[in-house]
Amino acid sequence: MARVSQAHLDARRRQILDGAAVCFARNGFHATSMQDVLKEVDLSAGAVYRYFSGKEELIGAIVEEVLGQVRDGFEEAARSTPPPPPDLLLSSVLGRILATKESVTVDGQPALPRLVVQVWTETLRNDRLAALLSEGYGAVGEAWTRIVEAYQDAGTLPSDVPAEHMARTMMAAAMGFLAQQALFGPAPAEILRDGVRALMSMRDAADTR
Amino acid sequence: MARVSQAHLDARRRQILDGAAVCFARNGFHATSMQDVLKEVDLSAGAVYRYFSGKEELIGAIVEEVLGQVRDGFEEAARSTPPPPPDLLLSSVLGRILATKESVTVDGQPALPRLVVQVWTETLRNDRLAALLSEGYGAVGEAWTRIVEAYQDAGTLPSDVPAEHMARTMMAAAMGFLAQQALFGPAPAEILRDGVRALMSMRDAADTR
Repeated sequence: MARVSQAHLDARRRQILDGAAVCFARNGFHATSMQDVLKEVDLSAGAVYRYFSGKEELIGAIVEEVLGQVRDGFEEAARSTPPPPPDLLLSSVLGRILATKESVTVDGQPALPRLVVQVWTETLRNDRLAALLSEGYGAVGEAWTRIVEAYQDAGTLPSDVPAEHMARTMMAAAMGFLAQQALFGPAPAEILRDGVRALMSMRDAADTR
Repeated sequence: MARVSQAHLDARRRQILDGAAVCFARNGFHATSMQDVLKEVDLSAGAVYRYFSGKEELIGAIVEEVLGQVRDGFEEAARSTPPPPPDLLLSSVLGRILATKESVTVDGQPALPRLVVQVWTETLRNDRLAALLSEGYGAVGEAWTRIVEAYQDAGTLPSDVPAEHMARTMMAAAMGFLAQQALFGPAPAEILRDGVRALMSMRDAADTR
């Protein structure tokens, strides 16, 4: 067999993952067959199965990659002293991930938000995927909890705020923002930045009640 | 035909809608048949079709009901001077709607969050449902925009905050919080209240950058 460079292997793997992501975003995991994926990436079964044993492994790799990027983004922030404020942090991590996947499209729209919503639905009937998602979200939640604690250490957030509740709320905002893009089309992450910043400017109302 | 009271008709309609919601939450709209709904509600086809012509009408009625409750909750708030602060408002409207539907369950878990995620996915391939959802979310967004403007009139929010961006962010937080419940099980709305309140207590960080 001819020697194949690592760069070539990586590019091929990337091509398969992106093609599978398009298929899953379009029709969901359940209704997508390996034949659909082969057709989308325009490769032979042999070429694809060399990298992935089937749909389960494909969706697993895609979910791990995306959740890994989300986790890395927030873990990096958790290490800065102090971490960037939540409006900038949330919009920069989300904006970066959306930008990375911008070229992967379905019907001319970014595939990622649709893929995320399809994965959520699939999780409801696929225990392995549910476990994978639960683990991934857990890691993101832990990173966010450390960020919240760092805000508290830096004195920019009162110490009596339940860190996990704020972590969960920040993740909820990001998840809902992605769902909105799946439903109503792309939107710049600055919308989320402005909205979170608006909440951060409402102290008076909180203080006076 | 025997005379039937309005209360009886309403109860029967309620029974059908809740049964259909359970079916859709469990398997999604696409994979649910009218036979599944008939079995779930334990009624004859004649009894069910007297109220609803089919799946489209059922899902339409369910989506309109839930989005109507969300809209009513925020429109009521938009009329108060000033409206309740966002942490209390978001958690009270969401908490009330979750409580209303608490008894409608799938596998022992509240069906509503799973139903919401299933509807989002179905929207990606059902244009009529997409239009219905777009209209409903539009109305909720308008109510939230008025609430943000009322905060600005009351002086609890700077006047240069883009009202629509904050409206969209508040909706994103609610949508993501529902998605979390579909994925990881029920959670009290107080988590979202605490998280939003935490952001509202972060003014120092916003001021000093």
